[in-house]
Formats: sequence, C-alpha cells, structure tokens
Amino acid sequence: MYQFETKIRVRYADTDQMKYVYYGNYARYFEIGRVESLRNLGLTYRELEEMGVMMPVLENNSKYLAPALYDELLTIVTTIKEKPGVRIKFDYEIKNESGKVIHLGETLLVFVNMQTGRPCKMPEVMEKILASYF
Amino acid sequence: MYQFETKIRVRYADTDQMKYVYYGNYARYFEIGRVESLRNLGLTYRELEEMGVMMPVLENNSKYLAPALYDELLTIVTTIKEKPGVRIKFDYEIKNESGKVIHLGETLLVFVNMQTGRPCKMPEVMEKILASYF
Amino acid sequence: MYQFETKIRVRYADTDQMKYVYYGNYARYFEIGRVESLRNLGLTYRELEEMGVMMPVLENNSKYLAPALYDELLTIVTTIKEKPGVRIKFDYEIKNESGKVIHLGETLLVFVNMQTGRPCKMPEVMEKILASYF
Amino acid sequence: MYQFETKIRVRYADTDQMKYVYYGNYARYFEIGRVESLRNLGLTYRELEEMGVMMPVLENNSKYLAPALYDELLTIVTTIKEKPGVRIKFDYEIKNESGKVIHLGETLLVFVNMQTGRPCKMPEVMEKILASYF
Repeated sequence: MYQFETKIRVRYADTDQMKYVYYGNYARYFEIGRVESLRNLGLTYRELEEMGVMMPVLENNSKYLAPALYDELLTIVTTIKEKPGVRIKFDYEIKNESGKVIHLGETLLVFVNMQTGRPCKMPEVMEKILASYF
Repeated sequence: MYQFETKIRVRYADTDQMKYVYYGNYARYFEIGRVESLRNLGLTYRELEEMGVMMPVLENNSKYLAPALYDELLTIVTTIKEKPGVRIKFDYEIKNESGKVIHLGETLLVFVNMQTGRPCKMPEVMEKILASYF
Repeated sequence: MYQFETKIRVRYADTDQMKYVYYGNYARYFEIGRVESLRNLGLTYRELEEMGVMMPVLENNSKYLAPALYDELLTIVTTIKEKPGVRIKFDYEIKNESGKVIHLGETLLVFVNMQTGRPCKMPEVMEKILASYF
Repeated sequence: MYQFETKIRVRYADTDQMKYVYYGNYARYFEIGRVESLRNLGLTYRELEEMGVMMPVLENNSKYLAPALYDELLTIVTTIKEKPGVRIKFDYEIKNESGKVIHLGETLLVFVNMQTGRPCKMPEVMEKILASYF
C-alpha cells in the first residue's frame, strides 16, 4: 500500500450557487491527489507521457458525505491499495479543516501505449519505484 | 420509468491535452441531461430552488467506455428508473455521433429543505408530474 | 462585417457562490459564440485544425455590466468587424432573457500553421466564405 | 504599490487539446493571485464576505504572450498599483519555469455592500492593512 497527503485550497471558481464545491470539481481534486502522490515518489505524470505512456480514466466514483466550502484548506489522502498491473486504482479520502471526512472517491486508470493506442503494462520505472510498497 | 434525450456539443474548454473530454467534465454533461429531462416535463430546477428545495449530490459514478472528442455532438439519454422519494437517481448513457455508447453514469441526489437544511420528500409538484411514469 | 446570434443556457457548473456566473466562464461562452458563428458559415474550427491550422488566443477582454444568473437563456451576439488577415478579432455582446446587455467581450486570435508553429494567413477556404461580408 | 508572488501548478484539467492552458483558465489563476496576495497581508476574501462585502468583477483583460504547459510551476506576480477606493485593480504577470513572462492580465473589481447591493468604499480593515503601501 502507498499513501500520500496533499493540501488543496477551495477556490471561488470551484463553488456553485449552493455555496458548495460543485460536484464535478472533485475530479480535479482527485487528479491533484494522484499526481502529487506520484511526484512524492520522484515520478511525474508528465514524464510518463514523455515516455509514451498515457493514463486515461476507466472509472470514477464519488461519495459526497458533506460539502466543501469556499477557502477551506482540504486534505486529500490518496491511496494505492493494490499493486498496479495494466490498470491502477487510486482511492481518496478528503477531509475539511476540522478533520472531518467529507468525501470518498476512487479512480481506475489504464496504462496506454501512446503509439499503438493499446493498453500496456505499468512502465518499469514506475514498477521499481512502487515495488517496496506492495 | 422516465427517459429523455439531450444533445450536447463538446467544446474546446472540455478537452484536455490527451485530445479527450477531461474526465471531470462529464459531471457537467450529466447536469445538463438531468436539468433538461426535468424541463421537458415542465419543471425547472431553478423553480425547485425558488420553492425552497435544493438537490445536492450524494453519489456520482462514471464508466468511460470510449473518449468523447472535440466538436462531437453527443447524445445524453437520461433515465429515472425508480420512483423518487427523499432521494432521486438519474442514469445516463452518452452516445457519440456514430451512435456508439461511450459513457455510462449515475447520480444520486437528495431533496433538501433549504430552510431547515434537512432532507425532505420530493416536492408535490414534481411528484404529480412524475406520477404517470411510475 | 459578419454577425451571428447563439443561445446559451447558464448551468449550475457555471455559477459561483455569489450566485453569478463565475467571471472566468465567459471565455467559454465566447468560444461557443465564435465556433457557432463559423459553423453557420459552413466552416468548423475542427476542420481548420484538420487542415493544419490552429487559432490560439492572443488577447481576451471582458466588461461585466450585470451578472448572468443560473438557468438564464443568454443570447451571444458575435461579430467579426474587420476582414481577418493573420489575426482575427471577434466581438461579443451578451444579453440576458429580458434583452438587457450584460456583458461585452472581445477576443483576438492568430492563425498558426501547426507544422511550423508559425503565424500564417487565414486559410483560403475561410477567406472565400468570409469574402462577401467585407 | 503592493506586490506578491504565488506559485501555481498547471493541472491536466487546465489544458486543452492544443496542449496549452485553455485561455479561459487564466481567470482562475488570477483569482488565486489576488486571494493569496490578500492572505499574505492577513486578510482573506472569505472574511470580507463574512463582513458583508463582496467583490464582483467589472473588467478582466488578458494578453497571451506564450502558452503555459501541463505540469509547469507558474509564478504569478500580483500587483496593486493604485490605492483602492470603491474599486480595486489587480495586475498580474505570469512567468513559466524558465522565468519567461508568458501572460499579462488585469482585473478591476468593485466593493459591494451585500445588504444593499450597492457599491461601497473599501472596508476599513482593508484600508488600514494597505495604508503603508500607498
């Protein structure tokens, strides 16, 4: 298992007239959780694309337990629970400033060879970096 | 069961550098599917809020079967399968221009009394309008 | 001069907690105005990119005269005032449902040859289509 | 004059199929520049709204000198050049990772009393905080 925490500030752009974060904007927060959890391991998604591997999303699921509000500093706990193969799954737990869990999410992505457009195995560099966690 | 079809044009704003619609933007398409399916029944979400009822999202799930591309005219088939009570669930099937199903989604929302902040039953006006479908 | 009108519905996704359309979302409305005004002439921006020409933005300016509100059906009047050369300028006037002008905007774009990355003249097909208006 | 620097990471959500940051997303970056420049003075926009003052946008202008790319860590230099009265103007200069200025922007906002809906003077607490800079 690999876990990493990221902080995100809710912006006015993220809110809607209900004064909540618009339900579609959590996907952006998930993206930040994923990308920063990889960067913390010394790996950027930008490098993966430069190596010719992209990671489109297959599934994305959200449970809205309580609203996120403007200017709150949210904590995103991103977890990779299982060793990735051709696919990789990220779980997220989002907490508000008082430490309350307000959101649960998960995203399933697939490694795709950008030249062939076909699914492929996780790049070796990523496998090595993640090896000690699984 | 109640079902309604809406057309949506993919905008440049919706795409990302993978040349696909960014995975977080389907929530916006779902919103359009929901709102237009209600408008077709003579009911607007704006009126619901004016009556003092809002509908925050509890769950939102997406399956990405194939990418949506820039300028495609997508068809969103929105379905309410079960009679709503305190909660209402919308299912979506998104087809691209060639009629291929590229996305499946579902959103669970709850009726909330804006004065008390507590869940409430579906407004009567909505119940009457939906009655013949269930 | 060439002028075209497009209708746009304000979505919940577009609003912010001020209950106005978020100031950054007018750029999306401008995009829709531009693209639909070209489509009305029989030309799509998608085709321009397929021909190897893209149109990045050089300048974008907005004047917010009055807020746009949720679910309003806005009218975007898009105008090309001057014959385009290497650059093309679009002007926008946005009216709300009661016909009041609530927003003024303008966008300056440049034609770029996607192979060389250099500015280029407006594609011939576009010049022919626009010829009768200038 | 008051000036402050903020760092922003470009997200996949921000890009479009040109592989550039979508032209409408700079408004979000400007918002972050403004809000963080005020927070650095000990003042949050959230508090201003809690005091009953909101700051809708009157004008927003952008010059796109060069594209911002995915995952770049941008620097936003936000400047208040003139002492605010009923209105406040922010200027922005955005630099990419190599220090090149890629974007210039400015936003004019107005202080509005949320009870009356009318323009009002800059709140006293803000005037005191800004006093030493003008």
